[in-house]
Amino acid sequence: MSNIFGNIFRLTSFGESHGKAIGGVIDGFPAGIAIDENFVQQELNRRRPGQSTITTGRKEPDAVEFLSGIYEGVSTGCPIGFVVWNTNQHSSDYDNMKDVFRPSHADFAYFQKYGVRDHRGGGRSSARETIARVVAGALAKLALKEIGIRITAFTSQVGALKLNEDYTHYDLNLTESNPVRCPDPKLAQQMEELIFRTKGEGDTLGGVVTCVIQGCPAGLGEPVFGKLHAALGSAMLSINAAKGFEYGQGFSNMEWKGSQQNDLFYNQDGHIALRTNRSGGIQGGISNGEDIYFRVAFKPVATVLMEQPTVDKNGNETILKARGRHDPCVLPRAVPIVEAMAAMTLLDYYLLNKTTRL
Amino acid sequence: MSNIFGNIFRLTSFGESHGKAIGGVIDGFPAGIAIDENFVQQELNRRRPGQSTITTGRKEPDAVEFLSGIYEGVSTGCPIGFVVWNTNQHSSDYDNMKDVFRPSHADFAYFQKYGVRDHRGGGRSSARETIARVVAGALAKLALKEIGIRITAFTSQVGALKLNEDYTHYDLNLTESNPVRCPDPKLAQQMEELIFRTKGEGDTLGGVVTCVIQGCPAGLGEPVFGKLHAALGSAMLSINAAKGFEYGQGFSNMEWKGSQQNDLFYNQDGHIALRTNRSGGIQGGISNGEDIYFRVAFKPVATVLMEQPTVDKNGNETILKARGRHDPCVLPRAVPIVEAMAAMTLLDYYLLNKTTRL
Amino acid sequence: MSNIFGNIFRLTSFGESHGKAIGGVIDGFPAGIAIDENFVQQELNRRRPGQSTITTGRKEPDAVEFLSGIYEGVSTGCPIGFVVWNTNQHSSDYDNMKDVFRPSHADFAYFQKYGVRDHRGGGRSSARETIARVVAGALAKLALKEIGIRITAFTSQVGALKLNEDYTHYDLNLTESNPVRCPDPKLAQQMEELIFRTKGEGDTLGGVVTCVIQGCPAGLGEPVFGKLHAALGSAMLSINAAKGFEYGQGFSNMEWKGSQQNDLFYNQDGHIALRTNRSGGIQGGISNGEDIYFRVAFKPVATVLMEQPTVDKNGNETILKARGRHDPCVLPRAVPIVEAMAAMTLLDYYLLNKTTRL
Amino acid sequence: MSNIFGNIFRLTSFGESHGKAIGGVIDGFPAGIAIDENFVQQELNRRRPGQSTITTGRKEPDAVEFLSGIYEGVSTGCPIGFVVWNTNQHSSDYDNMKDVFRPSHADFAYFQKYGVRDHRGGGRSSARETIARVVAGALAKLALKEIGIRITAFTSQVGALKLNEDYTHYDLNLTESNPVRCPDPKLAQQMEELIFRTKGEGDTLGGVVTCVIQGCPAGLGEPVFGKLHAALGSAMLSINAAKGFEYGQGFSNMEWKGSQQNDLFYNQDGHIALRTNRSGGIQGGISNGEDIYFRVAFKPVATVLMEQPTVDKNGNETILKARGRHDPCVLPRAVPIVEAMAAMTLLDYYLLNKTTRL
Repeated sequence: MSNIFGNIFRLTSFGESHGKAIGGVIDGFPAGIAIDENFVQQELNRRRPGQSTITTGRKEPDAVEFLSGIYEGVSTGCPIGFVVWNTNQHSSDYDNMKDVFRPSHADFAYFQKYGVRDHRGGGRSSARETIARVVAGALAKLALKEIGIRITAFTSQVGALKLNEDYTHYDLNLTESNPVRCPDPKLAQQMEELIFRTKGEGDTLGGVVTCVIQGCPAGLGEPVFGKLHAALGSAMLSINAAKGFEYGQGFSNMEWKGSQQNDLFYNQDGHIALRTNRSGGIQGGISNGEDIYFRVAFKPVATVLMEQPTVDKNGNETILKARGRHDPCVLPRAVPIVEAMAAMTLLDYYLLNKTTRL
Repeated sequence: MSNIFGNIFRLTSFGESHGKAIGGVIDGFPAGIAIDENFVQQELNRRRPGQSTITTGRKEPDAVEFLSGIYEGVSTGCPIGFVVWNTNQHSSDYDNMKDVFRPSHADFAYFQKYGVRDHRGGGRSSARETIARVVAGALAKLALKEIGIRITAFTSQVGALKLNEDYTHYDLNLTESNPVRCPDPKLAQQMEELIFRTKGEGDTLGGVVTCVIQGCPAGLGEPVFGKLHAALGSAMLSINAAKGFEYGQGFSNMEWKGSQQNDLFYNQDGHIALRTNRSGGIQGGISNGEDIYFRVAFKPVATVLMEQPTVDKNGNETILKARGRHDPCVLPRAVPIVEAMAAMTLLDYYLLNKTTRL
Repeated sequence: MSNIFGNIFRLTSFGESHGKAIGGVIDGFPAGIAIDENFVQQELNRRRPGQSTITTGRKEPDAVEFLSGIYEGVSTGCPIGFVVWNTNQHSSDYDNMKDVFRPSHADFAYFQKYGVRDHRGGGRSSARETIARVVAGALAKLALKEIGIRITAFTSQVGALKLNEDYTHYDLNLTESNPVRCPDPKLAQQMEELIFRTKGEGDTLGGVVTCVIQGCPAGLGEPVFGKLHAALGSAMLSINAAKGFEYGQGFSNMEWKGSQQNDLFYNQDGHIALRTNRSGGIQGGISNGEDIYFRVAFKPVATVLMEQPTVDKNGNETILKARGRHDPCVLPRAVPIVEAMAAMTLLDYYLLNKTTRL
Repeated sequence: MSNIFGNIFRLTSFGESHGKAIGGVIDGFPAGIAIDENFVQQELNRRRPGQSTITTGRKEPDAVEFLSGIYEGVSTGCPIGFVVWNTNQHSSDYDNMKDVFRPSHADFAYFQKYGVRDHRGGGRSSARETIARVVAGALAKLALKEIGIRITAFTSQVGALKLNEDYTHYDLNLTESNPVRCPDPKLAQQMEELIFRTKGEGDTLGGVVTCVIQGCPAGLGEPVFGKLHAALGSAMLSINAAKGFEYGQGFSNMEWKGSQQNDLFYNQDGHIALRTNRSGGIQGGISNGEDIYFRVAFKPVATVLMEQPTVDKNGNETILKARGRHDPCVLPRAVPIVEAMAAMTLLDYYLLNKTTRL
């Protein structure tokens, strides 16, 4: 339940921030897919800490090592095991948090649930766990590429700074041209400065990541409880610090009536096409062949490097000043994670959909 | 996958809008719970069509009939099968939609996926399917009551009309005092008028439902992929017309920094307590003992009773004027459905959490 | 877990022996399959009580009523709900067993597990539950027919009377020509007499059912934990009174060495073929294209109509003389149930196998 | 599906015979269990190759390395990742089998299913995969020990040599006193000689493992499709070379009638007890508090070191003389694997059973 993602394509992940390794096993990966290990490493590099001045200073190569399931460069249909070794833990940074709960962090809830916890670096609740997702997502992308599905995420808001237009107004190729991963270079510059300044204060920021899925065929999605947007929503809400998910018009434009919201079908050169895509590419929980797009809200990182009142596990009040290396804003590094979760979801649903007819 | 909800507590639902019946089977319901069938029927009555002038005119008793799993008024641990017979179908209303796709409806996507579809009343894509959820949710509520968990949802926005304050400012007992299910009677009156007026135009409206879960113990939620808010999000996004989900601060207050967002622990008479609840009762995916609250966005109903251009299954362009009885706004009837999905999720996670320790 | 069978094709079953109905929901049935309801009823008739002098005297039509998922005679891909109403319960027959545990029956174990039980007719532990399996299995057979898979079971042993040769020596078309369902008419006659005689003594008998699956393509089966024979074994062991499962050579011929057991490949007119089929059509957990065959052991029915010492739920010793209508031997009626479980397993694995490659 | 075992306690396994490592991830292991890593290694040593003259000559330390989920010697409730590195592969031994199918081996079926395969050492179909099971089973045993459940398996038959009495007649502590793992030292000696002689001929043998579970509380087992014996059967049939499973009286004593088979309840000093245990500790799919016992049939190892006619992947007939290091009989090493699968099943069902009541 907890550490297994997916129905047919399934990732089982493991590892803590300051344990020996982060890793996972992918079950249900289709046989016969060429595995470009360099591509997987590049995806990991996109989420790697220390990639710019606005991310955590933890410096690690985060090199993936595949242990099974690939033979002569091709997936065999057997489970793909992999590890990424942890090499740069500074566990003593966390000594003062061993028995103290960081405000708005998972510390307290984990302790309530399990009665024991590995406090070092946040243990299992650390976003370092998402390494396993990025590896699995990269493999999913390789499979999706063969069926023409492309996934692109970008930062659309940091603090109060946000893109004013929807994704169709931007050149998404510019996303990777700046450390914030925002396709508007000018706004990206402002976002970067804001994050840098906030980091200097020991404080943190939230924001929004937008994701676009192109080339998705119609028919993916299991109606009722397995709706495609419910699966995407669940996947996105499983990312650390995520607070909200919306697709299509989402929470916006509530003043619009049905007659204004509806996307109209027409005949475009012999094919059924849509004049607008306010639905976000999914209708009745099933993809309709249009671009799928959605937005994910992230809260500010809970660990601020400032003094905060809190309590220890015995209820004694105390003042905590967190140490350790933390991102002032998850957004830039959340972008490849959002893509990875989307890729795994899409591949899983693509495979599921093959069982719809004999 | 598609029609089965939950991990331990599992609802399998079936039925189409104009088929013989809607029903379901609940597997994993705990043994020894007293089943108050009147309460279940009352919950169904809250979602029943025709309950006011602002809902669909379809008139049905929607009486639940339990077929198994209950003996002498107590659950036996065996699966609880139930049916609600359809009695008021007007299938001929849908004759002109047999081969024509309603804009922004599930019609087209279902046809792409399955190659066949029961078009009458929307078939399986109709919100009539949620009858099964309300029955199962009512049973879940009966079990949750024994452990002190209470779930209350209400309409917080219709079109552009919205509550200005958060849920703590309202008397939630007023929710059921008006047909819109809004705890602010004055705003409720305006909402009702807006819906009634829009219905008269043949048009439809969207809105937002807010839900509050009180009395939830700390420790519920499976970290990583089974986070409690991811499960709630997935459950809510499985409801017809849902477009977004957020909990705690969600998409709001993005200008707030971490030091402003964080909820601070303190010692309240010997217990660990929180000064604020911006996290929404969940931290690291696990409940922390505070109120859980979240919001669900619903789009306007796709079926408007106005002429709309569209195409048929052969791609021929045509003009459709839908008939049939449709809600002008799903909000009032979505309230008990949101509660039902929340109740099933909470009971499922409560049971799951029992396996955390030996 | 408990009442849901399958991975992609999933049956959720419900109902007790003396409740209102037995029924189920099939999720994941492929869209576009023609549903011959007469065939389903015929299969139910094969398991119906009272079909001969050697089965239980309970007389019921066991007529299936489909509630959803079929439109104009074709499966829609939506869940197929169905019920079979109970009409001939004699619950008072069980009054003396309300608080008393029948020896070797599920009574005691259910009570230990759940703390409550519906004792009437064995409640949920009654083989009457298998009605749901036979309905779902019949639908699975209709789908399998389209891909050329045929399933035939028969009685190969009753008490000490058994077939001396393997299935290839008999005309399996003779199976349905006698009430015992044994393809050797002479032995069938002896078996029938033995059962009839034992019934007269108020006693019961066990036996063995053999099942053959023909036309199964190579490649079905998920290696490691989802081996095809493990899935078949689990399915068969879920049938009431089943005590053992073996496929291929099973527990037999242990004196044979590997060089004697191995099935040799050769080139038969350009195709890879096997000279023998001691493996039983499955190698490494995956079908190899040969006939699959296996055997299921059933113990004598626990409920004998003789006085037996036992205890009540308070531990008081007592003498029980069971009443009610019981089969003296499950074998004849187990045959269609074995076929149904095999059909569901095969269809499930056929669908699963479609996800092996992109 | 394929490589994930269990419902609550879940093992995901990975690795091929000649890949980098065998490993796995355990999700759902209860928090707070003391982990004795030495015990885990001892269990691995029991299945290690090269442990005697009658097992494969492959010599490896098979040392387990835990990567996560354990902190300060105690399980944290987080997934437990582990690896065992492969160090003694002789892949060139398999060069002549790259495109040739070994008779009765998984080679052909894997190739039919996946279109690609890692032929070296049998790849994923090698019993070397069971390393992951033994590690996970050892952890499960540590948890079961805390609730008083003990699991003991032993060799009860090799070729035609078999124990004449049931398990209650032997001192099971003698099992580990000889390389065959048979509790009758005299018969063990004969079995060892038979295996040694057969190995000298390049041939192989099958046999039977018996397993006894003591101290299991009443109430474990999910009726209908999740019967405890169905779960055990599925687990055992997932072991390489397994051909059959039976519990209690199984396929034996078919001449016994119900009145002879039934186990009678009586009052033993105020407790409900049974005079016999022919049911094998499970009634209606649920444990009844008595010893659970079952038997597993294993066929002779398919890879014989003799010339055998076969075909290659293009259908060309050829003569294969297998090389490589193979067990002449799986029995001695299957014993700890049977125990491991039983331990995982029992722990999983123990945890599941906690959800039966609120």
